[in-house]
Amino acid sequence: MKDRIYNFAAGPSMLADEVLDRLYADFYSYQDSGMAVMEMSHRAKDYLAVFSETKDRLRKIMAIGEDYEIFFMHGGATGQFAAVPLNLMKKGKADYIVTGNFAKKAAQEAMKYGEVKIIYDGKDNGYSQIPAIDELHFSRDVDYIHLCSNNTIYGTQWHKYPETKDIPLVADMSSDILSKKINVADFGLIYAGAQKNMGIAGIAVVIIRKDLINQGNPLMPQILSYELMAKNDSMLNTPATYPIYVLGEVLRWIEDKGGLEQIEKDNIRKADLLYDYLDGQTFYKPHARKTDRSLMNVTFTTPDPELDSLFAAQAQENGMANLKGHRLVGGIRASIYNAMPVEGVEKLIEFMDLFAKENA
Amino acid sequence: MKDRIYNFAAGPSMLADEVLDRLYADFYSYQDSGMAVMEMSHRAKDYLAVFSETKDRLRKIMAIGEDYEIFFMHGGATGQFAAVPLNLMKKGKADYIVTGNFAKKAAQEAMKYGEVKIIYDGKDNGYSQIPAIDELHFSRDVDYIHLCSNNTIYGTQWHKYPETKDIPLVADMSSDILSKKINVADFGLIYAGAQKNMGIAGIAVVIIRKDLINQGNPLMPQILSYELMAKNDSMLNTPATYPIYVLGEVLRWIEDKGGLEQIEKDNIRKADLLYDYLDGQTFYKPHARKTDRSLMNVTFTTPDPELDSLFAAQAQENGMANLKGHRLVGGIRASIYNAMPVEGVEKLIEFMDLFAKENA
Repeated sequence: MKDRIYNFAAGPSMLADEVLDRLYADFYSYQDSGMAVMEMSHRAKDYLAVFSETKDRLRKIMAIGEDYEIFFMHGGATGQFAAVPLNLMKKGKADYIVTGNFAKKAAQEAMKYGEVKIIYDGKDNGYSQIPAIDELHFSRDVDYIHLCSNNTIYGTQWHKYPETKDIPLVADMSSDILSKKINVADFGLIYAGAQKNMGIAGIAVVIIRKDLINQGNPLMPQILSYELMAKNDSMLNTPATYPIYVLGEVLRWIEDKGGLEQIEKDNIRKADLLYDYLDGQTFYKPHARKTDRSLMNVTFTTPDPELDSLFAAQAQENGMANLKGHRLVGGIRASIYNAMPVEGVEKLIEFMDLFAKENA
Repeated sequence: MKDRIYNFAAGPSMLADEVLDRLYADFYSYQDSGMAVMEMSHRAKDYLAVFSETKDRLRKIMAIGEDYEIFFMHGGATGQFAAVPLNLMKKGKADYIVTGNFAKKAAQEAMKYGEVKIIYDGKDNGYSQIPAIDELHFSRDVDYIHLCSNNTIYGTQWHKYPETKDIPLVADMSSDILSKKINVADFGLIYAGAQKNMGIAGIAVVIIRKDLINQGNPLMPQILSYELMAKNDSMLNTPATYPIYVLGEVLRWIEDKGGLEQIEKDNIRKADLLYDYLDGQTFYKPHARKTDRSLMNVTFTTPDPELDSLFAAQAQENGMANLKGHRLVGGIRASIYNAMPVEGVEKLIEFMDLFAKENA
């Protein structure tokens, strides 16, 4: 039954075989509970153990201090595009750094709730770059500064974060959380949709410095309230129980691999293989500026959009799925999240080389 | 591996063995796609087929007319407590009928967004009753009238719905959707959290008459906008892909069983067994008024709260889990949703009889 292929999707995306094996082994009866995890009441003892172990494991792996809360929320990262301004805007002002499509969407959603200043917009460089720290001029009187740490569509990534001093830095880390070590204390708030490095679609994970939790905008829907999440330990209503469990198993796998230090090494190795190949040839053209390349999403084009489509189709036939670029930009995108084994990248490079020779 | 027990939880709750068997069989590689459903991009062809089959099947099973849209949304029913007023309030007024805890929560959330009139509140009868139709006096100038069709905590259920003429009737059907045939055309909007009769936690299903879809409150978060759900076929952002797939398998199972007509017969048979037993003895005291009893959640007490706890504990030891009443009301609650086989109910009655004799 395990005739599996390499899935290069940008999210939802592949899970490690070891994670799938565990889900499968415990499928009908989780640890002799007599029921599947997806059937468990969120208030039942067995499930509460899964829930709190998942939180504890995330805290440990990311070295999240006790001055931070962790929430598992409904609505994905798009829900957080609204939740962040609804909860954090007191003065009603925020700076947004627009390095891609989702960063822009976050800014647009925030504009409903306050004064948003776009202090950088990469549209003139086709979102192929991340701004240098000294290009950024922050406002002084804002509630927070928002950025998106990795731009899935364009294949760029922040490799050094700006220091924002006493203004909280808020980061949408949907597509690179858990891919490397970061210093959580540098951020006021981190959020991420789970369907890339954290498991499957259905939850947003929020890591927030406790002093930022307050009543927020009185008109905000309860499901987006950080204050209510804190009061109810993310169980204001029934949480997405199965996606939270899958996250727990992904975290266990990261621990077994050797934690984020090892994960980061593996990710650098995979990305280096692919970028080194791209830099050593002329058929494919990489999209992102060299210094700002993403270790998670590698974007490039062939000389011709029709060849891009042929590439994705032939790759699929060869056991490599979802290599087509995002519908907004076209081209080719190889998403190589934590779960993608190095063998998948090697196989892709082999195919790329063959395809280039055949279509040069 | 299948040492399974009867799970009487109110939700998340048990899945039919046949549904679990299908999820398990397709776990690693869904229909030779080479990947698990939970790994599939929501935009990939294989997943889009799952998605649209699920919608089509729901439309067919519930006989939903083409003048209605179906959405799969984030945030559970609690998300809809806000979404309904945010989307439907034009005049800014609504009538709410409070027959239990969740009906009350829905009303409280709506009060943030407009003028809410509670036209019935069952608190004086301990939420043991559903109002008679002639007890209800609707306002004339409201945007909608809201009720909760089945009250999980108290074990009451509407068996006949009020006619609200040209004012849209909105129903939270989280705990009895798909348990019987209903006439969708009697409602302006139906919503339900999926974790009872529709599968697992993580999605809310919304069935809405198309003419009610409009721009809504401009300050509403995008993830709650019916207009955006309609424009994007529920894919404004990544939907909770796996819970939607599970819903599809639950719907297939309902079809295989003979549709809602047969499901309803089975549910009546199970509930009759349990209520007939309760009516023929004096040890246990049923909570709900006879005419308003829920076919989904059967609530009762022993002569003593300590015995209630002992009951739940001993039942657990005998392979019947989660019989403790909701923390707000105590007592005992047996949730017998579609997936509970009649054998589970028979086993429960046998145990109840023994427990009553031992503790009389």
